[in-house]
Amino acid sequence: MARWQPETTQRLVIAAVDLFTEQGYDATTVAQIAERAGVTKSTFFRHFSDKRELLVAGQETLSRLLAEGIAEAPADASPLEAVAAGLERASSAMGPTNRELGPRLKAAVAASTELQERDALKSVGLAAAMTAALLARGVPDPTAHLAAELGVLAFKRGYAQWSEDDRDDTQGLAHHALAALQDLRTATASLG
Amino acid sequence: MARWQPETTQRLVIAAVDLFTEQGYDATTVAQIAERAGVTKSTFFRHFSDKRELLVAGQETLSRLLAEGIAEAPADASPLEAVAAGLERASSAMGPTNRELGPRLKAAVAASTELQERDALKSVGLAAAMTAALLARGVPDPTAHLAAELGVLAFKRGYAQWSEDDRDDTQGLAHHALAALQDLRTATASLG
Repeated sequence: MARWQPETTQRLVIAAVDLFTEQGYDATTVAQIAERAGVTKSTFFRHFSDKRELLVAGQETLSRLLAEGIAEAPADASPLEAVAAGLERASSAMGPTNRELGPRLKAAVAASTELQERDALKSVGLAAAMTAALLARGVPDPTAHLAAELGVLAFKRGYAQWSEDDRDDTQGLAHHALAALQDLRTATASLG
Repeated sequence: MARWQPETTQRLVIAAVDLFTEQGYDATTVAQIAERAGVTKSTFFRHFSDKRELLVAGQETLSRLLAEGIAEAPADASPLEAVAAGLERASSAMGPTNRELGPRLKAAVAASTELQERDALKSVGLAAAMTAALLARGVPDPTAHLAAELGVLAFKRGYAQWSEDDRDDTQGLAHHALAALQDLRTATASLG
């Protein structure tokens, strides 16, 4: 780990994902997570209602940033340009810890139906936040819904590319998310 | 209810959704569902592993039909034409009971985070089945992924329109799902 000291929330997330990866999600208790993170159980419960909620740490923040970026895009921005602004804003909240966690999070989710369900609902939440922000800009339905779904796909694909790339991270998540959005936009021309 | 006799699986689903709507998902037990459906608890457990699985009754069938429809579309069909063939095939499995259940299912899901999670993962599963079938046709990624997501959106939007329409159902789900797919296709032109 780098020398910087993550906040307690991040420390709990790292401890949990490490334990999920080492011994599985089901076998990991809140007590173990708290111990690994060097905090008490009551500190854990001040941050999360249960161990599953750890995996959606940041979902509310992401939803808010995506919506803010969309809302504050220039008035003449197209739906996808507004989505791109949302992705840039949300990406700014994702740092080295998020990147490092990616592959381990993916492994933990792949091994647990419960986590897959929570992860799926997280995507639904992000799409809903973006859809609402686009509708508020006057983008009609179903364009708003479609643009939001492309935004979620781009964020997930960009995050995977960012966190699974072994090279030094010189460009940040935003670069990968925007490139993924552009790929999806290009792909709309070959749907037939 | 109509005079035709639904199979046990459908009878259990109807009983469960009625109970979820009347008294909430959390308060409903397997014993109550079995009693309402006029079967024993052991019969229930021959059909479903738990009450939540009731709500994904048919997911495996839908995934299979979507994939089959895509696989068997003409060789020169475009990605969205193949998706349309999948939607038509899957829609053929959805009859009056499915239509009647729609609004009650929606209410039950809206009231339960657990059901929202399961429902979200169902959509992920349908998208994965369609993506795999499109890749197997030689559709490149991300076009395959994008076309599959449009297919899921179209199926959900079409199902909502079909099941929430108070008029007599003269056209079936396929009509609504294909119209929704066409709307989404048209919307791709206004993404910017």
